[in-house]
Amino acid sequence: MAPIPHAIQPPGRPFRLGVVGGGQGSFIGPVHRRAATLDLRFAIVAGVLSSRPDKATADGIAIGLAPDRAYTGVAEMLAAEARRGSDGIEAVAIMTPNDRHFEQCMAALDAGLDVICDKPMVTTPDEARRLAERVAATGRVFCLTHNYSGYPMVRQARAMVRAGAIGEVRLVHAEYFQSGMATPVESRPLTDKLRWKLDTARSGPSLVLGDIGTHAHQLACYVSGLAVTEVAADLGAIVPGRQVDDYAALLWRFDSGARGTCVVTQAAAGAENDIALRIHGEKGMLAWRQQAANYLEYALQGGALQRLGRGDPGLDGHALGATRISRGHPEGFLEAFANLYVDFADAIVARNAARPVADPGFPTVEAGVAGADFVAAVVASSRAGGRWTALGAA
Amino acid sequence: MAPIPHAIQPPGRPFRLGVVGGGQGSFIGPVHRRAATLDLRFAIVAGVLSSRPDKATADGIAIGLAPDRAYTGVAEMLAAEARRGSDGIEAVAIMTPNDRHFEQCMAALDAGLDVICDKPMVTTPDEARRLAERVAATGRVFCLTHNYSGYPMVRQARAMVRAGAIGEVRLVHAEYFQSGMATPVESRPLTDKLRWKLDTARSGPSLVLGDIGTHAHQLACYVSGLAVTEVAADLGAIVPGRQVDDYAALLWRFDSGARGTCVVTQAAAGAENDIALRIHGEKGMLAWRQQAANYLEYALQGGALQRLGRGDPGLDGHALGATRISRGHPEGFLEAFANLYVDFADAIVARNAARPVADPGFPTVEAGVAGADFVAAVVASSRAGGRWTALGAA
Amino acid sequence: MAPIPHAIQPPGRPFRLGVVGGGQGSFIGPVHRRAATLDLRFAIVAGVLSSRPDKATADGIAIGLAPDRAYTGVAEMLAAEARRGSDGIEAVAIMTPNDRHFEQCMAALDAGLDVICDKPMVTTPDEARRLAERVAATGRVFCLTHNYSGYPMVRQARAMVRAGAIGEVRLVHAEYFQSGMATPVESRPLTDKLRWKLDTARSGPSLVLGDIGTHAHQLACYVSGLAVTEVAADLGAIVPGRQVDDYAALLWRFDSGARGTCVVTQAAAGAENDIALRIHGEKGMLAWRQQAANYLEYALQGGALQRLGRGDPGLDGHALGATRISRGHPEGFLEAFANLYVDFADAIVARNAARPVADPGFPTVEAGVAGADFVAAVVASSRAGGRWTALGAA
Amino acid sequence: MAPIPHAIQPPGRPFRLGVVGGGQGSFIGPVHRRAATLDLRFAIVAGVLSSRPDKATADGIAIGLAPDRAYTGVAEMLAAEARRGSDGIEAVAIMTPNDRHFEQCMAALDAGLDVICDKPMVTTPDEARRLAERVAATGRVFCLTHNYSGYPMVRQARAMVRAGAIGEVRLVHAEYFQSGMATPVESRPLTDKLRWKLDTARSGPSLVLGDIGTHAHQLACYVSGLAVTEVAADLGAIVPGRQVDDYAALLWRFDSGARGTCVVTQAAAGAENDIALRIHGEKGMLAWRQQAANYLEYALQGGALQRLGRGDPGLDGHALGATRISRGHPEGFLEAFANLYVDFADAIVARNAARPVADPGFPTVEAGVAGADFVAAVVASSRAGGRWTALGAA
Repeated sequence: MAPIPHAIQPPGRPFRLGVVGGGQGSFIGPVHRRAATLDLRFAIVAGVLSSRPDKATADGIAIGLAPDRAYTGVAEMLAAEARRGSDGIEAVAIMTPNDRHFEQCMAALDAGLDVICDKPMVTTPDEARRLAERVAATGRVFCLTHNYSGYPMVRQARAMVRAGAIGEVRLVHAEYFQSGMATPVESRPLTDKLRWKLDTARSGPSLVLGDIGTHAHQLACYVSGLAVTEVAADLGAIVPGRQVDDYAALLWRFDSGARGTCVVTQAAAGAENDIALRIHGEKGMLAWRQQAANYLEYALQGGALQRLGRGDPGLDGHALGATRISRGHPEGFLEAFANLYVDFADAIVARNAARPVADPGFPTVEAGVAGADFVAAVVASSRAGGRWTALGAA
Repeated sequence: MAPIPHAIQPPGRPFRLGVVGGGQGSFIGPVHRRAATLDLRFAIVAGVLSSRPDKATADGIAIGLAPDRAYTGVAEMLAAEARRGSDGIEAVAIMTPNDRHFEQCMAALDAGLDVICDKPMVTTPDEARRLAERVAATGRVFCLTHNYSGYPMVRQARAMVRAGAIGEVRLVHAEYFQSGMATPVESRPLTDKLRWKLDTARSGPSLVLGDIGTHAHQLACYVSGLAVTEVAADLGAIVPGRQVDDYAALLWRFDSGARGTCVVTQAAAGAENDIALRIHGEKGMLAWRQQAANYLEYALQGGALQRLGRGDPGLDGHALGATRISRGHPEGFLEAFANLYVDFADAIVARNAARPVADPGFPTVEAGVAGADFVAAVVASSRAGGRWTALGAA
Repeated sequence: MAPIPHAIQPPGRPFRLGVVGGGQGSFIGPVHRRAATLDLRFAIVAGVLSSRPDKATADGIAIGLAPDRAYTGVAEMLAAEARRGSDGIEAVAIMTPNDRHFEQCMAALDAGLDVICDKPMVTTPDEARRLAERVAATGRVFCLTHNYSGYPMVRQARAMVRAGAIGEVRLVHAEYFQSGMATPVESRPLTDKLRWKLDTARSGPSLVLGDIGTHAHQLACYVSGLAVTEVAADLGAIVPGRQVDDYAALLWRFDSGARGTCVVTQAAAGAENDIALRIHGEKGMLAWRQQAANYLEYALQGGALQRLGRGDPGLDGHALGATRISRGHPEGFLEAFANLYVDFADAIVARNAARPVADPGFPTVEAGVAGADFVAAVVASSRAGGRWTALGAA
Repeated sequence: MAPIPHAIQPPGRPFRLGVVGGGQGSFIGPVHRRAATLDLRFAIVAGVLSSRPDKATADGIAIGLAPDRAYTGVAEMLAAEARRGSDGIEAVAIMTPNDRHFEQCMAALDAGLDVICDKPMVTTPDEARRLAERVAATGRVFCLTHNYSGYPMVRQARAMVRAGAIGEVRLVHAEYFQSGMATPVESRPLTDKLRWKLDTARSGPSLVLGDIGTHAHQLACYVSGLAVTEVAADLGAIVPGRQVDDYAALLWRFDSGARGTCVVTQAAAGAENDIALRIHGEKGMLAWRQQAANYLEYALQGGALQRLGRGDPGLDGHALGATRISRGHPEGFLEAFANLYVDFADAIVARNAARPVADPGFPTVEAGVAGADFVAAVVASSRAGGRWTALGAA
């Protein structure tokens, strides 16, 4: 993929975007909205901010929507916007509870719209495959916001692995330590968000896997260029008395024969949002950690550790293109997220121009299928006492 | 100052902003524009993007201005916007070469507009004082974008010093190592930006002091709560043959009796944009570095080093209010810059409501006066062979 | 255990020590000798430096032994030193290939000598138990040089866990990435050391587990105060064509119900000797990494990360007692190793004085038994396709 | 200088060493003794451990001296050891209060002994020059224990500068922040050590300069290969009411034209023993900090930051030769100090063999002369209101 010229003016007018979810109180709502508009690639012109009609209207107006485009339902929005014709929305961004994604994505695709959807994409492999088929059938662009793959130095790592900088990949270790559920949050009055998260009918078969396990899996696959083929897993709760999973540890094997480990938990008392990846290959290593997101560690066997910085002139075009400001001035989570929106916009432009794209470079519906398979296999392996379990075998 | 509720919806409609400078090719232009709009506190509706008329028009349209509001001159914009009445601009953001600031700020103030201006504010102490008087006389809000003071952990450091966390301040060390001029850039074809920077008639009496020395000075004063009263300085070029300053080192003394050092250079080959501050007081220390901007180091005498993180629940309200995303997910330069725009908007709201603000909490015109005095004193001291020279004595 | 007053003069004359192994070309030989003598607790007066008689004599003289005490066999040394009576050796340090430890330790114990032995202690659980019985029967002091437990900040971590600083332990992650075997070392002329290491009849059932897996296991148990009860493991070679194990990854469960992961490899191209431990408990976390051995990271849920430093006045006595120099001046591997020799000497003094010691505070023969059980269980689990396998069940 | 083969056996028998100072309660005494003996290059066989006769005897016996070689005076020791003939001491290590160094060094040289002396060498430039003349006249080896120059990665930095790795040096920044005197230690009962330190008649003209300023100066010169030619300084006490200096900040210029800053203080509350050096040259930078002593940061303009590690195979021979253990296992202060003793022994061997040594590679009496000149110039400049003052001009 050619460098994305983030630092200069956008190539043409912003696309008109409708948002679904993300009303007042949401963590991810403001992230999506800032990310979508940061580079003037999208203008948010319509939305269904909440499943509660009154809140949907108020929150929509609060984010600047015209009152008549602050809708109270997705079907209503899709129909009304279609009726607008040439100034109706062209794409939809979905940031609702996990169990709503499938139906909402399908509806938006069926309405002829491009879709950018929060992760986890859906809650079962079956839904994932049906959605992938619908994407293919409709020819719409689909972007799944595994945002860590938007970090420039993650893209640099991916480009370096691909270019053979560490040789054949042998070992992949991913970890994600969060602390948000380290205390017994269930025993306090629940927020709206916690209410649906703690309900596995809504959040999916395994809370920790849906929330952060799929991030670690996607990050590992995105950078290594490999697919996980089987897992041996231990899944459960490390906070006593908890009914949902807050911990998953697993051994994994990749299609190339590479091996490794993955550990994720939302109950790591004292941890920050600490996601990290470490890959060793035949010739050397690459390591990245969100806490130092502007850097990538690289060492060849026998050589000094190199700390590549975002903006270093020698970086790969895909990494340089994903950066907005000069070296040393830090970028963060927001810019990484926004890079997915830029990718999404670029892909729409390319599709509209019938220009083929060899490597989309961002997480597509296929990443969602792989993620759903991963969740299912980890759950199955853990239930089977840690037995090696193949992905996609269900 | 009360916490700024960044994470939630903005309090009311965005103010209408006109921008001056920052056209295609500018580093700081896109920063200002993203920062201004990130929190929906400003909408950029007019501008003079360049001093070249054709470029001004084209660049203005490229950033989304209506063609009739992509002006070719400041006076023209101020007049035309005034004529628009209720939908004309309410504030101006100035990001032009240094020698243009004074006149443009004065014009905008005289037009009754609030002003946010890039640093260095002006190029002489005299201009600085005249501008300060005009700000006072017009009652307009004036914000100077010393953006490092927008970082949440810098604000935390300031709050902690003020609260006595390290006791009486004794030692203040500031440093800013840049590498952009480590090579003889003068011998290559000059960009527009370099052309005016290398012309001291335009960039001011000392390039390195205007570009980054004022940042280091402002950061030190902002956090310590102290004012520099005298300096003993060495100023010059460390790249052979260079006609402008690229290096300044100085000893400084503060009004409280505290002492310390400051070293800044744009010619530190191999450096990143590495600005750092370290303060030791009677009881302990605080240290901050932009490369790890989301953290603040704090140690009491005899105790463990504490690494406070942006978003830690125990932070001061001024720091927590300046953060948009949860702990561990990094924020960067952009959010820090945007915090000044939020402050600027809040101050306009307060002024409009005639609500007194005890501590503006952001760099005002007074910071610009102090910066101009600092530059003048450093230049004078260096010329006098390092003699201790008082600020404001000119 | 009371603080060990390392910084002051030793309590009495040095014990007379005989060394077994560690001749010219050995990595660990000079480490043991420097560690033994650093604090004047031992004087090396006899030894069998090599299994080759001519080398044993020459290397013994080279390290300063009197020619008649540079022996060519262990039995010979034990007999001759016994005949010396009051100036004969009082203790033996064993640093031979793994398969020699059992017999040599047994012989030394039977000769009435105290023993300090390199790890892995022995190569089977059965030998481990027989050795433990002999230690108990003879009343001799036995120290196993799991040297990471000699680092002051590791001891601080252990003391803090024990004191409840992080509450009930929930999650233990240990990793050890080495690069020494990342290249196909087998295809080059073998050193003496590699020759026996690559021979599993000599190095034990699993090279990576014996070399570094037991270190990771001991470190995790030492700090957490817990015992591993079962493992689900993946063991093998990640360098193509290798006949010995160079990689082990496993899920583990502890007697308290805590869980976690462990990954160790000697084939991590580009890695340093990177051993690290991370423990999350009910209330917070502790993390230690050899690369920053003088520090311990500690964070309570919701609080700042604290970086405790070796020598901080508030540390636990067991950590402070294991430090020789003031805060900020780094100590390293050697001092950590030497701390085990100090412990060993202190235990001999205590035993000689018939003074009971509640907590030896260093790795004893029981750590060797646990390590042998760990190796056996990991091997068995991996062979059984990752099935959860209990330790000590063989 | 050829690599020093530290890891292998010593080249020949240890030299017999007499120690002066360092009795019970001393910080530096045990450091010297461990450093001297770590590599079997010296055996401590005689000493005057204290200026108080009874303590001298008791402390000498406590460190293992024969009672008749635990002397009570330097003259007595020199005479008695000379009478021993072939088993008398061959070298003297001096670790007494600063004002004793001159006379004791002169006496030892006059007795035909090689001398290793703690810093600051002496307290005036005049003494320094007289001592240098005596060293030259006697042909004895003289080593000054500026121990930071014993760190392998400091030697690597020196070798790289010399090899042109960063091009012509332009900027040298040194800092040393200590906290030992951050509190008003004068108001508490004084230890022996503090009693002489606080007496400038004994510790020299400026406490902070003698204690740590000379370290920073020597480190900067040692690595850069340059000499400081003039300073503009601010010297004094930052702890209110203190009679001795605890703070020095200065601008310095080097013989090559390079410039920079130096700040040292013993009153930095909350600091560790934090000495650091940063050098920027024409092509890039090198940075070292004792807190991460096993690493050296290196960046070329436009390139990634490289973190060279002690033991990396590509290091310079002088750095590799100064390391005892493999990469990743940390070494510290002790080994750095011991490297000076190895250098000292090597230099004695070379001198005894009449083998010329082009570059001694360790701090000699010339470093002591430069240090005394530095102290005098800083004091003079500060008294003259920061005026640029030449070294050696007194």
